Amino acid sequence: MNLKKCPDFLRADQCLNDREDLTTYAFDGTAGIRQLPALVVFPESTAEVADCIRWAREWGLNVVTRGSGTGLAGGSVPADSNDSLVLCLNRMNRILGLDVKNLTLRVEPGVITQKINEHIAPHGLFYPPDPSSQKISTIGGNVANNSGGLRGLKYGVTRDYVMALEVVLASGEIVRLGNACVKDVAGYSLKELFIGSEGTLGVVTEILLKLIPAPAAKQTLLATYDSMEAASATVSAIIAARIVPCTMEFIDRFTLQSVEAFAKLGLPTDCEAVLLIETDGHPQAVQEEAAAMTDIARAQGALQIQLARDAAHAEQLASARRSAFAAVARIRPTTILEDITVPRSRLVEMVRFVQETARQYDLKIATFGHFGDGNLHPTILTDEKDEAEMERVEQALEALFQKTLELGGTITGEHGVGLAKKKFLQKQFNDYSYELLKLVKHSVDPDNLLNPGKIFDV
Amino acid sequence: MNLKKCPDFLRADQCLNDREDLTTYAFDGTAGIRQLPALVVFPESTAEVADCIRWAREWGLNVVTRGSGTGLAGGSVPADSNDSLVLCLNRMNRILGLDVKNLTLRVEPGVITQKINEHIAPHGLFYPPDPSSQKISTIGGNVANNSGGLRGLKYGVTRDYVMALEVVLASGEIVRLGNACVKDVAGYSLKELFIGSEGTLGVVTEILLKLIPAPAAKQTLLATYDSMEAASATVSAIIAARIVPCTMEFIDRFTLQSVEAFAKLGLPTDCEAVLLIETDGHPQAVQEEAAAMTDIARAQGALQIQLARDAAHAEQLASARRSAFAAVARIRPTTILEDITVPRSRLVEMVRFVQETARQYDLKIATFGHFGDGNLHPTILTDEKDEAEMERVEQALEALFQKTLELGGTITGEHGVGLAKKKFLQKQFNDYSYELLKLVKHSVDPDNLLNPGKIFDV
Repeated sequence: MNLKKCPDFLRADQCLNDREDLTTYAFDGTAGIRQLPALVVFPESTAEVADCIRWAREWGLNVVTRGSGTGLAGGSVPADSNDSLVLCLNRMNRILGLDVKNLTLRVEPGVITQKINEHIAPHGLFYPPDPSSQKISTIGGNVANNSGGLRGLKYGVTRDYVMALEVVLASGEIVRLGNACVKDVAGYSLKELFIGSEGTLGVVTEILLKLIPAPAAKQTLLATYDSMEAASATVSAIIAARIVPCTMEFIDRFTLQSVEAFAKLGLPTDCEAVLLIETDGHPQAVQEEAAAMTDIARAQGALQIQLARDAAHAEQLASARRSAFAAVARIRPTTILEDITVPRSRLVEMVRFVQETARQYDLKIATFGHFGDGNLHPTILTDEKDEAEMERVEQALEALFQKTLELGGTITGEHGVGLAKKKFLQKQFNDYSYELLKLVKHSVDPDNLLNPGKIFDV
Repeated sequence: MNLKKCPDFLRADQCLNDREDLTTYAFDGTAGIRQLPALVVFPESTAEVADCIRWAREWGLNVVTRGSGTGLAGGSVPADSNDSLVLCLNRMNRILGLDVKNLTLRVEPGVITQKINEHIAPHGLFYPPDPSSQKISTIGGNVANNSGGLRGLKYGVTRDYVMALEVVLASGEIVRLGNACVKDVAGYSLKELFIGSEGTLGVVTEILLKLIPAPAAKQTLLATYDSMEAASATVSAIIAARIVPCTMEFIDRFTLQSVEAFAKLGLPTDCEAVLLIETDGHPQAVQEEAAAMTDIARAQGALQIQLARDAAHAEQLASARRSAFAAVARIRPTTILEDITVPRSRLVEMVRFVQETARQYDLKIATFGHFGDGNLHPTILTDEKDEAEMERVEQALEALFQKTLELGGTITGEHGVGLAKKKFLQKQFNDYSYELLKLVKHSVDPDNLLNPGKIFDV
């Protein structure tokens, strides 16, 4: 069904039903996943969201909620036929209130992630989760995917900063889950269930975020290594020294060479691995930790260690990692960014396996990621028009996920399952817990109205 | 039905069915809630737990899981007739493995909370949640209730340290939820749903805990005030100074006088409020924060400020708060410890209301609690044999919960709902979310086998 009619309770500028316009909403950041919706609507209030959901139900449409469309698992792309109403929440982008006494910020879901820190920084406050897409991603999308970022090891992820949610359910009912209390154990924590549920259980229309005091100081180090083992041993030795840096990022040789060709940062390209390490907190602690980590990196055989001289230099060092995706994405027409995560102690084994897999299937795979979190982004550079190569890509992915699970890992650390990883989920949820997922979905959205076909098939 | 027969797959010493023995399992730490179970079993493995659950189902018994019975909401007391099998997990008390590379500890549910820190301290590691009952409470009970403690403001609660669970469901199925990865967004976070579900969704048989490096230094302050407002203003000013102490505890005049009569700490008893503040972390940061907080307390009009000279002195200062419950519990035969929590900014209003309520209903109420978390423990000292007074207690509780909710609070910050607060839950879950609780319960435990009658009636 391809409806042309927009709901009459919305203004004309709150609805798209022209094929050309709809095309923009047929994909997100995920390679190879496209599907036209029937209609795109832009509600501006919780009441309008509820109206849209009820209207969709009435007209036989399912509801796909979307923010900026930066997702990397196809979670906001209609599943498989054009009977989807895309509910785009970008216009619900008001910051509703900063409460400095309780250290909370109330926002609508369409607020751009980065704006949160811009808004609270003058108050000395800090919202730690920093997905790489933060300049365009929305906080609603972050909540739906429980987004991570570069500071996970020390500061956790989006879930750790969500105190309360307002959610519109598939029935059109509006519920408030959680509150402004630091501690609350009344009833099941339904809030926790909705965080990371990828739009399949409800539509988040308001979020109460927890803030923390901004760290007083920060230091940045960049260390290069001629072996993966030495880089990994550095990470282990830092943890063994009971230091928890806010960032421990890794890029491999291929990524480094791509970054250097792209950004000309003056990095040595004849090394196997680069670690970007950031520590923040009390100035004295930061200074001591940076010195200790420099010693550790040297003892583990780092080829070169750069300590940021100032904020600009820190920015430059960090850009080696932050520009990784942009740099490697230039190499081939199609970029498939994976998101496997293993217990930290199994990282070297996993990186080696990724490299071996690239050789075995004759593929270009750049690997970078959050070493401190065990979260790797092996990025396959390919061309979706090349069928033979795409078949090898599929086989390689299957091998990577298999190995990840063998090492006690997860198929997705921060991007979500969406459509892209759906077929691998049951390998991870390989007991009755897979049935539990379906039972929970059925109890909350019995008619499978919300984002159907995502995460698992009901 | 009062079964005398023990399941034949257990040894004789794994089962109690004698009335005298059962009496010990007819109550927990909650005043006025008692009910004999039909049988108590002590499984020693996950497989035995599953067998017990299947056996209970077969014999028409429901299953009430229990640890040390320190609960304060009747959550581990059979609900209302003696057809309960009490599943006591105290013998599943092995520490299964410390992983220093991944900073995790694998434990069985019957491990005593305090043993965790004793076990990991030699490795420089730290498990922050510290419920007051930690010397006897079990980690399984802590997970079931998402227990807090004195360090919530800075370090969070039990939930923040649970990476994975093994759970036996009402069907006898065994599922593993979560893993050793720092980040994981595959599927719904079912683990989060089970944490704090008070034994109503499944029986936790193994827990993987997250550990952090132990703070290098700690300092303790005790400040006395002649007004509640001054104490509260100190807390606000500390937060405004962007300091997050690990502990900000409060006791009121009545509690203080009881503590002094009980423990003879040499505290001045002619003050309205006492704050116990602890800060931990890098030695330099701790020293600066302690100095800054001393200045703040003085500027807010503290009568007296004691800074701990050494560990022994710190212990003595902390005992003013830590002995509060024991001190007030001596005063009358029955002690009803409440657990209301409000956003931090509403604390003074709430404490005032508690005091006003005590006057209005002619009751003795001692108030202490976690000021930094907004979590108060108004403790009603009464006599359950005095019917007229107990009626006033009921009315007072009703008034307290009402006010808590008006202030945006929760009826329980860390003790759970259990039987004791069940009738107030719907006032807090005052929209369709109350139905959601039931839908979730029904989807996971359709026959209402596990801890029936707790939290809500299905």
